[in-house]
Amino acid sequence: MKTWVPGAAGSAYDVDNLPYGVFVAAGEQPRVGVRIGDLVLDLAPVAAAAMLEEAHVFEQSTLNPLMGLGKARNDAIRRWIVGLLVEHAGRADVEPHLVPLGDVEMRMPFDVGDYVDFYASEHHASAVGKIFRPEQEPLLPNWKHLPVGYHGRAGTVVPSGTDIVRPMGQRVLPGSTTGSAPAPVFGPSGRLDIEAELGFVVGTGTTLGARVSTAAFADHAFGLVGVNDWSARDIQAWEYVPLGPFLGKSFATSISTWVTPLAALDAAWVDLPGQDPEPLPYLQVDGRAGLDISIEVSVNGHVVSRPPYRSMYWSPAQMLAHLTVNGASVRTGDLWASGTVSGPVPEERGSFLELSWGWREPFAVGDQERLALEDGDEVTLTYTAPGTLGGRIALGEVTGRIVPARP
Amino acid sequence: MKTWVPGAAGSAYDVDNLPYGVFVAAGEQPRVGVRIGDLVLDLAPVAAAAMLEEAHVFEQSTLNPLMGLGKARNDAIRRWIVGLLVEHAGRADVEPHLVPLGDVEMRMPFDVGDYVDFYASEHHASAVGKIFRPEQEPLLPNWKHLPVGYHGRAGTVVPSGTDIVRPMGQRVLPGSTTGSAPAPVFGPSGRLDIEAELGFVVGTGTTLGARVSTAAFADHAFGLVGVNDWSARDIQAWEYVPLGPFLGKSFATSISTWVTPLAALDAAWVDLPGQDPEPLPYLQVDGRAGLDISIEVSVNGHVVSRPPYRSMYWSPAQMLAHLTVNGASVRTGDLWASGTVSGPVPEERGSFLELSWGWREPFAVGDQERLALEDGDEVTLTYTAPGTLGGRIALGEVTGRIVPARP
Repeated sequence: MKTWVPGAAGSAYDVDNLPYGVFVAAGEQPRVGVRIGDLVLDLAPVAAAAMLEEAHVFEQSTLNPLMGLGKARNDAIRRWIVGLLVEHAGRADVEPHLVPLGDVEMRMPFDVGDYVDFYASEHHASAVGKIFRPEQEPLLPNWKHLPVGYHGRAGTVVPSGTDIVRPMGQRVLPGSTTGSAPAPVFGPSGRLDIEAELGFVVGTGTTLGARVSTAAFADHAFGLVGVNDWSARDIQAWEYVPLGPFLGKSFATSISTWVTPLAALDAAWVDLPGQDPEPLPYLQVDGRAGLDISIEVSVNGHVVSRPPYRSMYWSPAQMLAHLTVNGASVRTGDLWASGTVSGPVPEERGSFLELSWGWREPFAVGDQERLALEDGDEVTLTYTAPGTLGGRIALGEVTGRIVPARP
Repeated sequence: MKTWVPGAAGSAYDVDNLPYGVFVAAGEQPRVGVRIGDLVLDLAPVAAAAMLEEAHVFEQSTLNPLMGLGKARNDAIRRWIVGLLVEHAGRADVEPHLVPLGDVEMRMPFDVGDYVDFYASEHHASAVGKIFRPEQEPLLPNWKHLPVGYHGRAGTVVPSGTDIVRPMGQRVLPGSTTGSAPAPVFGPSGRLDIEAELGFVVGTGTTLGARVSTAAFADHAFGLVGVNDWSARDIQAWEYVPLGPFLGKSFATSISTWVTPLAALDAAWVDLPGQDPEPLPYLQVDGRAGLDISIEVSVNGHVVSRPPYRSMYWSPAQMLAHLTVNGASVRTGDLWASGTVSGPVPEERGSFLELSWGWREPFAVGDQERLALEDGDEVTLTYTAPGTLGGRIALGEVTGRIVPARP
């Protein structure tokens, strides 16, 4: 199966990848495209010419209508697109609708319904425990029984490339007390951080009261995005008891502009590292529930970490099963993210909090050092996985630059 | 100013109230209506006949387009509606479009963007502290410095009248341990509870990075809804550390089908009970920032509590200012709720957790007793406030019945 598209065969965006996104060409309306090599295939005119029943979903400014078609129709559409790109017969009709990536602007790919963030890396959760509660068991008692998670702010999920304004807020500075009571001050966060995560997008929703079993994961998850869940640790530390993170997270969460369909990950499934104690029945999974996705965290062009997604304790199918076990419904466009991905060794830590071990040990960023993010820093997350053609596919990257707080 | 609408003058839905909702009459499309007395005025045909510029917003199945018009246009539309209902000249054109409430079905009034739940009652937060941490200060150190809040699930906000399915989930039963470690079991929640709250709906949104000052509250808040934030306390107790409530809340949150515009509350503003320590500058308010709204909690027709909203520590303007101080944007349809409203005395507690003082003291529901909600129980929250015509206006009620868990 070889594509005729110039430069695409053997690249990280070969026909075994084919992520979807929403692009804008100069002077035109936003539309749905699929990436092949360094080109975007403008699907709307091609689908209209082919009289594809669902052609209208490509004329939209979000992927939601496409994602909501369901797994069977989406699998068929993917086969149709692969056919377009490998069969020479129709090449003359398709080639005029390939647009160089450099000629388009990528937009927010879908309308986010609810956004849930999990905490599914044992290495990350343990590191946080060791940093903040060194005298105690690093994991809290519930951690190995359920995928701990919480709701984040859907309205501030932004596409890769959006500048991140350093948030203002309440923090308690060292020694800032009135008598023995903490005395918060207002100002720009001094502990701005990243969280390198993987996100999952709902295609087919459910009705209130229904539960999604771990076996039904692929019927409801449309695809994957890269996620950087920006975090203001000083704001978070002061606000988070007892109801969890709020303003320390809600100022921005960046996602990739490309959504990789689940089908592109067929060769990436691996066994989980192992779960002990055995989870309750509704959380049990058969076979390969983990994903072998490699993440690279770069700051100002320097790689600072390589978190391995395959080291995650809880699988995406378990996260979705847990999220819905109380009958909560999901909608097309709902996003859930894994939480910070961190591996067992220091070079695999997915946050500055861990890389600096609680802001105590500066780490190298090229010939500079960092504890937390500084204004002007640009962070880029890239993701790769085994493709079904034997090489590696790239998931869309997530990038963002820190700009100074607004006074 | 007296309305000609039969039965409306002097009622709790007089022309100083005029809440909006989305109604469906038999065989017709959902449309926007306004309540007067026990009738719904079908605004779309009246606005079309009057050639009102914004007539299209009444032909929608949600209030979002109306709410998004902004304060100035909404104030003008309200004056136009009052005119319709008090001036006899146009009565013959308006009266045919008044539909008895009994002939329509009320729908979910708006699409919820993000849903944030606060924890703004000192009496409630203190009671929770005394129940769960009797040896310690009832309030955590941050509580009087900021309105503690978190994101809830927007996709499971349901309209009043929706049955509430008892959620299943993980809980740790008394004595349920493996060695010294807690051993959770899966099953229906045995500690199902209410939270009697007041909700605020965003009309005019903001862009990412902007902050809403406490003084700009009325420019962004469109109106109020009643809120019952159903809670499964046993699920919540096990899951909530360290990221806050998740499945213990996300199965359902009920809101009133009527949205009361802020303008209807002009006579309800009162001073806050007092804030000590003085909040940081961005949280300071001038004048009457509290609301004199009386809530009544009924279970199976028996009043069990009367929480007074005027006893709330944090004001709605402070909640919105805090929510956006980090630059988080808000959208038309965003909902934020106050958290459980509880007054200083037992008969004013807004949750079963407090009414039973931590499930220890059964309380009377008619000639029965309750600790937590039982299957078949129906809970109704009603809200009243001083109107501008000298009487009291009613805010839409919130009702829901508990149905058994799905196995």
